[in-house]
Amino acid sequence: MQSMQFTLAELAKLIGAELKGDEGRAITGIAPLQTATSSEISFLHNSRYRKYLSSTKAAAVILSPADAKFCQIDALVVRNPYLAFAKAADLFAYRPKHTTGIHPTAIIGENCQIDPTASIGPYCVIGENVTIQKGCIIGAGCIIGNHVSIDENTQLWPRVTLYYGVKIGARVIIHSGVVIGSDGFGLARDNNQWVKIPQIGSVIIHNDVEIGANTTIDRGALGDTVIEEGVKLDNQIQVAHNVHIGAHTAVAGCVGISGSAQIGRHCMIGGGSCIGGHLKIADQVVIAGMAMITNSIEEAGVYASGTGFLKQRDWQKSAVRFRQLDQLARRIKKIEEKTK
Amino acid sequence: MQSMQFTLAELAKLIGAELKGDEGRAITGIAPLQTATSSEISFLHNSRYRKYLSSTKAAAVILSPADAKFCQIDALVVRNPYLAFAKAADLFAYRPKHTTGIHPTAIIGENCQIDPTASIGPYCVIGENVTIQKGCIIGAGCIIGNHVSIDENTQLWPRVTLYYGVKIGARVIIHSGVVIGSDGFGLARDNNQWVKIPQIGSVIIHNDVEIGANTTIDRGALGDTVIEEGVKLDNQIQVAHNVHIGAHTAVAGCVGISGSAQIGRHCMIGGGSCIGGHLKIADQVVIAGMAMITNSIEEAGVYASGTGFLKQRDWQKSAVRFRQLDQLARRIKKIEEKTK
Amino acid sequence: MQSMQFTLAELAKLIGAELKGDEGRAITGIAPLQTATSSEISFLHNSRYRKYLSSTKAAAVILSPADAKFCQIDALVVRNPYLAFAKAADLFAYRPKHTTGIHPTAIIGENCQIDPTASIGPYCVIGENVTIQKGCIIGAGCIIGNHVSIDENTQLWPRVTLYYGVKIGARVIIHSGVVIGSDGFGLARDNNQWVKIPQIGSVIIHNDVEIGANTTIDRGALGDTVIEEGVKLDNQIQVAHNVHIGAHTAVAGCVGISGSAQIGRHCMIGGGSCIGGHLKIADQVVIAGMAMITNSIEEAGVYASGTGFLKQRDWQKSAVRFRQLDQLARRIKKIEEKTK
Repeated sequence: MQSMQFTLAELAKLIGAELKGDEGRAITGIAPLQTATSSEISFLHNSRYRKYLSSTKAAAVILSPADAKFCQIDALVVRNPYLAFAKAADLFAYRPKHTTGIHPTAIIGENCQIDPTASIGPYCVIGENVTIQKGCIIGAGCIIGNHVSIDENTQLWPRVTLYYGVKIGARVIIHSGVVIGSDGFGLARDNNQWVKIPQIGSVIIHNDVEIGANTTIDRGALGDTVIEEGVKLDNQIQVAHNVHIGAHTAVAGCVGISGSAQIGRHCMIGGGSCIGGHLKIADQVVIAGMAMITNSIEEAGVYASGTGFLKQRDWQKSAVRFRQLDQLARRIKKIEEKTK
Repeated sequence: MQSMQFTLAELAKLIGAELKGDEGRAITGIAPLQTATSSEISFLHNSRYRKYLSSTKAAAVILSPADAKFCQIDALVVRNPYLAFAKAADLFAYRPKHTTGIHPTAIIGENCQIDPTASIGPYCVIGENVTIQKGCIIGAGCIIGNHVSIDENTQLWPRVTLYYGVKIGARVIIHSGVVIGSDGFGLARDNNQWVKIPQIGSVIIHNDVEIGANTTIDRGALGDTVIEEGVKLDNQIQVAHNVHIGAHTAVAGCVGISGSAQIGRHCMIGGGSCIGGHLKIADQVVIAGMAMITNSIEEAGVYASGTGFLKQRDWQKSAVRFRQLDQLARRIKKIEEKTK
Repeated sequence: MQSMQFTLAELAKLIGAELKGDEGRAITGIAPLQTATSSEISFLHNSRYRKYLSSTKAAAVILSPADAKFCQIDALVVRNPYLAFAKAADLFAYRPKHTTGIHPTAIIGENCQIDPTASIGPYCVIGENVTIQKGCIIGAGCIIGNHVSIDENTQLWPRVTLYYGVKIGARVIIHSGVVIGSDGFGLARDNNQWVKIPQIGSVIIHNDVEIGANTTIDRGALGDTVIEEGVKLDNQIQVAHNVHIGAHTAVAGCVGISGSAQIGRHCMIGGGSCIGGHLKIADQVVIAGMAMITNSIEEAGVYASGTGFLKQRDWQKSAVRFRQLDQLARRIKKIEEKTK
């Protein structure tokens, strides 16, 4: 789409690597070891893939000092190659341009404070008393309710909805289809019918959070739903009312987090997991994919649930026996008593 | 955002409670026992939290006659405190104002009947032969297909899509990102390729239904997908073609309901569960979170599946043994025969 | 909404069936055997439902030669009745009309090539250097990024987002709320914080793919996410970066596919399943609903995981014993040694 070019020496400086090789070599892109061409750099962050070093056609490779000694071609040596790769990829990333200012088709309510360096895309609809700080990019077709505030350099991709009163920090990235501040699922019973409990809290998203496509975050019933700084949420995650997610926790796609769950800092939650309501998850907990978390976790560590897959015929046998497990255990006990 | 104020006597009357305390006391909000201030009311709906009564700073507490005798401060005594809380929260809830009439940027097709008391937001696109009854609020950016009908006092939050022919009842609430009437997943095989089966049914949503953000409800293949009155659907639920959900059933987030499943009345389906195709679930069935429902349920009751989580090391041991379950059961049988 | 009418002879010709009955009979619709009226045709694709043949009020029935001999009324006999039903339903399906050309409210960037036979709906926002081929229908409120290409006769329902650089084949159908090309979930660690890895690949969707409502497909980190021809994706599926799905595979709703997973051709993935990252699934693999796929599958066949549901009381007993499984197995071994 556009073409970027750096010399190896420029790249080394920009990603903080030590260059072993041709300073002036022109680099136009980045690619995996197996597919990189002679004008692209590549990277090796896992020594398991060291074998590809001998056959790669890359111009140079980002790698660790330990791997560098196996590298016959130009190298960009760095302590954390994966991080250096992230920095290098950033240099070659395509960035759609955004015109500063408010698109003439955007509809802006009364008493808004929109910084002139912000970009408000076509067909955005922004309510009253909204604050949008400098450098923000609000994509086409975003709908922002009354009393929302968005701190500086935050980007909303197209078609994001923020309900009224939501607060978004600085440098937050929100992908298309995200809904923040929708009503939590609060219901009271009245003679076998459900009465809606108005959700009068809000949602607070702190700085440096990223939120994946079509993820939903409900407003609090009383008090707020809170996503602390540096949290990374993948696509299609459901965050219920009054959930609190601690700083720098990463949550993979399709996770459901039930109401009032409190998740610690620096956790990693695997894709498709569900976390029950009102639970408390400690800091630095790692949860495997598709885990069913039905109790609080008080200790850092790695947790999993479920059963691995089998050929269906075999699975059926195990699944039937699962239903008999208590009875099987009692039979073992009986035999033990008989044979002791 | 705005400030509401009531006296305790007014509140008592509005929520149908008996006031024990200062009739003229001014109340400006509602909050949990632990965080309420002296101008806020709070509520106690579970005697487990009775301990907070002695330390709360709330102006008054909504509670049951049984809990009232432990309350040293002003009280709003009522038989169903949770329901009374719902009513009280409603009094303090923020309501974005909606201008009556059709926003000049909304595009309306031919032969539509839109009640003059309805509010049609900016950048809505409404097809032909659409009926929207009195008091409806259609949020910004909603897309409504031909031949849709929406009964009175229904609210679509921004960015909802209704495909052609969908029928929505009265007092329905539909949150942002919802899609209703998309094609069901109907496929026929033709020489190892899939041929699309046109989905010629529609979707009927009855009165007093609420539908959470980014939930999807497919149109029927033949005949309609039906959501009966008072059903409450949380966020990111997938309702496949020709599903029928009985009145007053509540479904938590991330549930998937496969094609032609029939769910009874007054059921509660836990978050993340999946219900197989063509199954029939009786009335008053409660299904735990993440349950895998692979057969019909003919009897009211509580149902669950899955395995609780473990530390990964321990989980791996159990998961390995799960694969051997049938073999283990046979070994038990053999020993029993040997030792009988 | 509109009314179509065919004679039985016309229908027989259009769906490739042999007519046994009244050639001139007028048919106005299609319905299941139990509800069809005397001006509608019906179909029987599973002999299990043969019993309905005697009581149906349908004008005629699409069925196989084997079932035809049990049919006392007019019949449309065909080798694959389900496929013939798909063709017949297509004849009666409602098709909203789409005006050719670009709606005056659509915003089109520079250097776009939009075929004059394409239909671009109201409030679409299309970036620069976009190509849209003949016969495409782009629904209201779609947002299409720079450098996107869409091949002929593809339909985007309203409110679809395509990020920059995405390539869509011919005859693709994309339902409302879909997001294609959002950033993959790529993170590198830097001192206990997450650094975003720019996602510089794209997404390639081949011909004849269908993508259900609110499904998300992330762009590749390096290299592309690829959906081969004829793949059918249901609603609310999450396809992570660099996933590759082989031709003619069908994926049911709510499935999560983790990064770099490679799924074969002609697979069928059941609803709610999750597939782990970097796994390889062979051709012609069938995966049951809610399966947890944690390893590659190298052989065609049917696979499943999980445990069937139980009444909660019984489930709890089994779930407790699951945690003790390894210990139970050791106890069996011990008894075996004692009693051998």
